[in-house]
Amino acid sequence: LDRARLLIKCPDQPGIVAAVSTFLQNFGANILESSQYSEDPVGGTFFIRMEFACPGLTDKKAEIESEFAKIGARFNMKYEFRYVSSLKKTAIFVSKEPHCLRELLWEWQNGDLMMDISCIISNYEDSRELAESLGIPFYYIPANKEIRNEVEQKQLKILEEHNIELIILARYMQILTPNFVSHYPKQIINIHHSFLPAFIGARPYERAFARGVKLIGATSHYVTNDLDEGPIIEQGVERVNHRDQVQELKKIGKNIERSVLARAVKWHLQDRVIVTGNKTIVFD
Amino acid sequence: LDRARLLIKCPDQPGIVAAVSTFLQNFGANILESSQYSEDPVGGTFFIRMEFACPGLTDKKAEIESEFAKIGARFNMKYEFRYVSSLKKTAIFVSKEPHCLRELLWEWQNGDLMMDISCIISNYEDSRELAESLGIPFYYIPANKEIRNEVEQKQLKILEEHNIELIILARYMQILTPNFVSHYPKQIINIHHSFLPAFIGARPYERAFARGVKLIGATSHYVTNDLDEGPIIEQGVERVNHRDQVQELKKIGKNIERSVLARAVKWHLQDRVIVTGNKTIVFD
Amino acid sequence: LDRARLLIKCPDQPGIVAAVSTFLQNFGANILESSQYSEDPVGGTFFIRMEFACPGLTDKKAEIESEFAKIGARFNMKYEFRYVSSLKKTAIFVSKEPHCLRELLWEWQNGDLMMDISCIISNYEDSRELAESLGIPFYYIPANKEIRNEVEQKQLKILEEHNIELIILARYMQILTPNFVSHYPKQIINIHHSFLPAFIGARPYERAFARGVKLIGATSHYVTNDLDEGPIIEQGVERVNHRDQVQELKKIGKNIERSVLARAVKWHLQDRVIVTGNKTIVFD
Amino acid sequence: LDRARLLIKCPDQPGIVAAVSTFLQNFGANILESSQYSEDPVGGTFFIRMEFACPGLTDKKAEIESEFAKIGARFNMKYEFRYVSSLKKTAIFVSKEPHCLRELLWEWQNGDLMMDISCIISNYEDSRELAESLGIPFYYIPANKEIRNEVEQKQLKILEEHNIELIILARYMQILTPNFVSHYPKQIINIHHSFLPAFIGARPYERAFARGVKLIGATSHYVTNDLDEGPIIEQGVERVNHRDQVQELKKIGKNIERSVLARAVKWHLQDRVIVTGNKTIVFD
Repeated sequence: LDRARLLIKCPDQPGIVAAVSTFLQNFGANILESSQYSEDPVGGTFFIRMEFACPGLTDKKAEIESEFAKIGARFNMKYEFRYVSSLKKTAIFVSKEPHCLRELLWEWQNGDLMMDISCIISNYEDSRELAESLGIPFYYIPANKEIRNEVEQKQLKILEEHNIELIILARYMQILTPNFVSHYPKQIINIHHSFLPAFIGARPYERAFARGVKLIGATSHYVTNDLDEGPIIEQGVERVNHRDQVQELKKIGKNIERSVLARAVKWHLQDRVIVTGNKTIVFD
Repeated sequence: LDRARLLIKCPDQPGIVAAVSTFLQNFGANILESSQYSEDPVGGTFFIRMEFACPGLTDKKAEIESEFAKIGARFNMKYEFRYVSSLKKTAIFVSKEPHCLRELLWEWQNGDLMMDISCIISNYEDSRELAESLGIPFYYIPANKEIRNEVEQKQLKILEEHNIELIILARYMQILTPNFVSHYPKQIINIHHSFLPAFIGARPYERAFARGVKLIGATSHYVTNDLDEGPIIEQGVERVNHRDQVQELKKIGKNIERSVLARAVKWHLQDRVIVTGNKTIVFD
Repeated sequence: LDRARLLIKCPDQPGIVAAVSTFLQNFGANILESSQYSEDPVGGTFFIRMEFACPGLTDKKAEIESEFAKIGARFNMKYEFRYVSSLKKTAIFVSKEPHCLRELLWEWQNGDLMMDISCIISNYEDSRELAESLGIPFYYIPANKEIRNEVEQKQLKILEEHNIELIILARYMQILTPNFVSHYPKQIINIHHSFLPAFIGARPYERAFARGVKLIGATSHYVTNDLDEGPIIEQGVERVNHRDQVQELKKIGKNIERSVLARAVKWHLQDRVIVTGNKTIVFD
Repeated sequence: LDRARLLIKCPDQPGIVAAVSTFLQNFGANILESSQYSEDPVGGTFFIRMEFACPGLTDKKAEIESEFAKIGARFNMKYEFRYVSSLKKTAIFVSKEPHCLRELLWEWQNGDLMMDISCIISNYEDSRELAESLGIPFYYIPANKEIRNEVEQKQLKILEEHNIELIILARYMQILTPNFVSHYPKQIINIHHSFLPAFIGARPYERAFARGVKLIGATSHYVTNDLDEGPIIEQGVERVNHRDQVQELKKIGKNIERSVLARAVKWHLQDRVIVTGNKTIVFD
């Protein structure tokens, strides 16, 4: 409960680590984990993630943040303090296929995904029972291309009511509009059922079968307005062979999808993912 | 030396296996390995690969082949007998990067790639010493887009002199013309440095880096006139992360390339790869 | 429904495939899949698995089996016909950890594990709700070393009432006695939480941590009287590193265990696994 | 050339990172990479590896080291400065199988293994030509159990003459005595041809075959006096199946061995491996 993460992005120069770690020490914090990455030591951007424990953190929070502003200014930092005790309010979107939703709920019940699942939204009724058996509000909002704007208005209203900070598209098979995406930049995680950038768009398993690939995969990425082009968080693949018809590819694919998405979400929740340009830094 | 492989492709119907295995038995052959695949038991195409040992095969060859023609006709088969004792005459093409060539030569020296390496052709002198140290004829033919036709004429002449049956492009960085490819259908194996169909074309590692993928790969395929679109034989991938710059991707990629190519070549030499449409069946 | 599998084991000699395939053809059967393996073409044991479709199979069954006896005798075969329509009656044993049970039930609901789950037996009450929600009889039988014999008597009685043909130990943490095992030879599948033969016995994750391995794994095998020494069906591993404490190893391990067990069970149900000596042939 | 690595091990307490990073900053150093690990933030041991660039390092070296002694004393540190410009003097031991030696030499020629290969020592003459073609002194010292002490005396003499800092056993098939090992603690890297702790000792592929495992592996570890029980640096595995006889296991195994050993050596040369107890921390 007394743990926090400090995420920093700034121009690289000598003295950053010294300044930050001295600052934290002066508040009695112990650095538990520290990961850094420099795009280029000369003139590049520097990224650091520090996880620290600090006795009495709740009381010191305000002071720490206001004091740190000086260091932030000195090094021209973009930074953020994130508190482990404050779980991210999350909405999960799902269509008909429940395997990714199930995996997330299962890991969440086990305590492996530290989030506050505020609601599940679906264009099918199929997952209602599962959601409600766990006490999670379930919203059924039928959707299709023609009514996209109305659908998104309803969804956005629900998301705002719940103060949602993270949206997980757990095989939600509707395209989101730029308007919707603009409300949640770098806050929407999707699972695409191919090893991107191969098979962008619809029906990737059918196309993988037609191409005769020997590996199929899945990709979890942040959603941007370019379909399947957002920053990649995690990918996975499995071997297939000529005997595997589209049905088998889908079965094998489901196992890849659920584990790739679960890993991506876990890293996001632990504030291990930093987006830079159209790429991610993952401090795993 | 008394071993052979029988490769068959025909419309599926009951009785094929019975007819073929009875035929081989009547010649005293013992079936060592048999792999079959049917695209669809009703009206689909049926494929079978049988490897058999037959005492006195050399003397019986002609009779076996002429007798089998009847079965072939009955079932409307395309088929081929391939004799293990007859090594495929092979040419290896290479440009500057020697890692794939080295791997092939190394496996060949170990007896793991049963082929007759008739020559090595390169648009650089770099691999001459290696080739000649193993007693393999080396041909240096400078190449570039402008002189493509003359270059290919020289190459084709050499290939014909050596009666080449298989061409391995072991990181040969020149595009082949349709005319060249038409001389060696399903007989040219390439290694492409990406997990196709991602990053078709030039500079795949640079583009993989720009896209921020978390896996890089390599693909071995038969060459057709559609660049990087030929039937895939084998693929492999390795994990990478945000720290890996283009240079590191290339290093990691080299290890994938050499092992993927070596596996594809091994399967081809063992007559385990059957091309159907733009896909391969690999009876491994 | 008209599909069956024929499994054969006999001394290798020419003519087996011809005889069997001619026999099946005469009954109008179409061979859908055929896999064979010879330990040694000269004097070794030969194994073959044929899956075939035969219109009107139910009516022809008795005649096929009685006629095949002649071929069986001629080649000194051990053989078995298994009918796809006849699902194996299965009991799943589980202790406290539900992840393997959940995975099996989930794949079974999806139609990916074709079995008749007759009952779930546990020494904990935890899985009752899950079992009963799916209409599967659940038996709670507390167990410990001291009362092993009484416990097994109760279990055997239930298994006999249900005519069980397959027992899956889905993280059942009690050792079975030789008496129990002798009732179900090659019919009990266990998942052991290490890459055997490393870490045989109790607390493998603790020992893996202590040894500092960089890979952890799981092994699914048939149960014999030698603890963790039975024929291995399938294994899987994942990378770990120095940061992973025992708790993390267990979490990572759960994902390996559930997928390794599910694959092993699927292959067993499809009659793809043949035990020979203390090893398995898996015709996957 | 102005790069160095600082490796520290000390009791965990707040302020370490601040002190060290401030120290380095005061000398004008820029921290390029920093990795840390704490066994337990309360009372555990803390490890950190910092790689830094420092203009004029050669001239400042002495002062940096003498000044740092104060910080070392304050935090009760064991620490070491290692300079990237100072390549480790390395001896490679090999017996008959050359695949690991070849891989190391190949990566070394490519500039991927930054070491000074001072000599190659073998109990066979086979690798002499390869060694000498690269200008590396080759010592042929026949060896067997009976003459172990004399052999090791000769080897130690050569190692001392060359001021060897690292010994790589690249499939050197002789057991080293405690006396020999005591001269090079944590400085001898071996490749064992199994996924340890499975198949400790001789003939692991034969035993893997007999056990019927579905994965084979290799393990690179530091050599201690307990055979195959030293701290593990890296492991790898590949799938095998029932068709793979001992010969095939060995072939597949060679590819695992060479890549596992090359990774372990690379990490050691980059000072990324820290031994703690009988385990390693690998800051990769």
